[in-house]
Amino acid sequence: MKEIHVELGERSYPIYIGPNLLSRTDLFDRHIKSKQVLIVTNETVAPLYLDKALQNLQAYHVETVILPDGEQYKTLDYVSRIFDKLLASKFSRNATLIALGGGVIGDMGGFAAACYQRGIAFLQIPTTLLAQVDSSVGGKTGVNHPLGKNMIGAFYQPQCVLADTDVLDTLDDRQLAAGMAEVIKYGLIRDASFFVWLENNIDALRARDKRALAHAIERSCLNKAEIVAKDETESGLRATLNLGHTFGHAIETGSGYGTYLHGEAVAIGICQAADLSLRKGWLQQKDVARIIALIQRAGLPVSPPATLSADQFLELMAVDKKNLDGKIRLILLEEIGKATLPIYVDHSLLELTLSAYGRD
Amino acid sequence: MKEIHVELGERSYPIYIGPNLLSRTDLFDRHIKSKQVLIVTNETVAPLYLDKALQNLQAYHVETVILPDGEQYKTLDYVSRIFDKLLASKFSRNATLIALGGGVIGDMGGFAAACYQRGIAFLQIPTTLLAQVDSSVGGKTGVNHPLGKNMIGAFYQPQCVLADTDVLDTLDDRQLAAGMAEVIKYGLIRDASFFVWLENNIDALRARDKRALAHAIERSCLNKAEIVAKDETESGLRATLNLGHTFGHAIETGSGYGTYLHGEAVAIGICQAADLSLRKGWLQQKDVARIIALIQRAGLPVSPPATLSADQFLELMAVDKKNLDGKIRLILLEEIGKATLPIYVDHSLLELTLSAYGRD
Repeated sequence: MKEIHVELGERSYPIYIGPNLLSRTDLFDRHIKSKQVLIVTNETVAPLYLDKALQNLQAYHVETVILPDGEQYKTLDYVSRIFDKLLASKFSRNATLIALGGGVIGDMGGFAAACYQRGIAFLQIPTTLLAQVDSSVGGKTGVNHPLGKNMIGAFYQPQCVLADTDVLDTLDDRQLAAGMAEVIKYGLIRDASFFVWLENNIDALRARDKRALAHAIERSCLNKAEIVAKDETESGLRATLNLGHTFGHAIETGSGYGTYLHGEAVAIGICQAADLSLRKGWLQQKDVARIIALIQRAGLPVSPPATLSADQFLELMAVDKKNLDGKIRLILLEEIGKATLPIYVDHSLLELTLSAYGRD
Repeated sequence: MKEIHVELGERSYPIYIGPNLLSRTDLFDRHIKSKQVLIVTNETVAPLYLDKALQNLQAYHVETVILPDGEQYKTLDYVSRIFDKLLASKFSRNATLIALGGGVIGDMGGFAAACYQRGIAFLQIPTTLLAQVDSSVGGKTGVNHPLGKNMIGAFYQPQCVLADTDVLDTLDDRQLAAGMAEVIKYGLIRDASFFVWLENNIDALRARDKRALAHAIERSCLNKAEIVAKDETESGLRATLNLGHTFGHAIETGSGYGTYLHGEAVAIGICQAADLSLRKGWLQQKDVARIIALIQRAGLPVSPPATLSADQFLELMAVDKKNLDGKIRLILLEEIGKATLPIYVDHSLLELTLSAYGRD
């Protein structure tokens, strides 16, 4: 088992990475605050892992909320169901909430924990690669609003994150690839040698080699932990984690939620950001080729949907959360391993990328 | 104008106390973060003070949410209306929310500010004495749940509090008295000389002498600011602010919300806590008599409702937020000016207080 620390003063916490962590009663005991435990999970994850978790929580009074699976349920109404269960169970401020699932469950469970009695303890047990390397680390929690993704939420740190590599066995190939998009992102924004490692090990990762996966998760979490420690509430540096995301959100919204997985849309967005970085004169053609090649080898799409025009992209990007004033700020790459902070981009260059990159 | 500082590191902020603060454009300018301003108020306060506030915010793009007036609207559903307006107005993370109203508006506006895009700036402009001396200071925000008061919320500090003593002119006598209950509380839990000052000035306060009111507000806020600085999230000392509140919540719930104002129920609860402190052998009979006399002179009730039996009290107190495990912890008084931390009380003594105190 590997252990990484997110250094946030009194809100610091460990990320445990390794096989069979769901059976580690000692880890549960170390981080659970009282007998009262609520597990929040969904209809997909519950049949796979809920019993296993419950077996190792027999010393506790455990209640369970099983939500429907999907981004469309990431709403205040469904978070209210968690509040209902906590109150009906008469759980106190010392209760502990365990979020067992992917990014949606982590975001909702974390937000419920942040708000219940103004904050109770919570544990993240991410069950997708994407959640293990990205969303479970750093304390961003929240829900969607009809007018925008993740618009309502809190910065709220867990007691610990248990990234059990065994749970990835039941993840389908498409979901695994989607997580890889965020893994590749860390190499691009701040860790050039990790990018090279990924070029050399992408086949092993796709073949689910356990040691390779554990290394990729560890290195990703290390990068994220360092960024979050420096900028918990995203006043600067943390924004570099959004590489490809403004393009990606436009793809997700413009093609209807559910058409692309988040990681797939981000993968395309990273390619677009690379193309724009080339046009800015920062990346070289061979850098962009390496980036596209790695993303393709990861099993991810690299071209924007033909149905989404450059004009539609521009419109959708202007209403992204980061750009509510209508001005588009983007993270670009100065080189592989070095991202910019959010910058305003010449509209003409952006339009060129949107109309030319990946359009045959 | 007086200025008190709540010292909370990077979350520190000033409380301004004095006449005509609603017209102080300079204070608004000092604490508002960008052109985007949302005022949250209610149907009672809006006709009285919204125009005045708007006049001094002409340099900003101001939107307004006017909620219905009353504790029964302090719900997630009504907070959602604030989110709807923020998003429909395309307000960014740099927007500022102003809560203009009593405790309910402050709690809801603060919670909305805490959650919108994981936190935007907010200003508290409390318009009741109770909100000025208590709920607007210290960062407790939130809403009620059908199964309990203030069960969903956040600790979230404002940029500043503007306690404009002129707005108390439109407060009716009953509301003014209700605020006095919390003022008296500060004297009882940690400020014996303030308690004596209150005994000497209670008539001036009831006559709305401006200087006396300003002093009472200042001294109350000073006490609260010191407590909050030492224990922001109520792990210990801050709980002393709950003197009388567990009794009071039982009275509010048991007689139906709206029968008693919060401050009235707390006033009765303080008397019950004093009676119990006498039975514990801490307070003397003459102390209890002084406490009851001052509360009565403030125009507040001192006896529990005859319709609420000792058994009903016990049941309701056991489901108070602080006592979700069914064990009743209370703040008692060792002397006037010195409260205990939350303690378990012998059931037999508590039953005596509940069945004997104030029952004729």
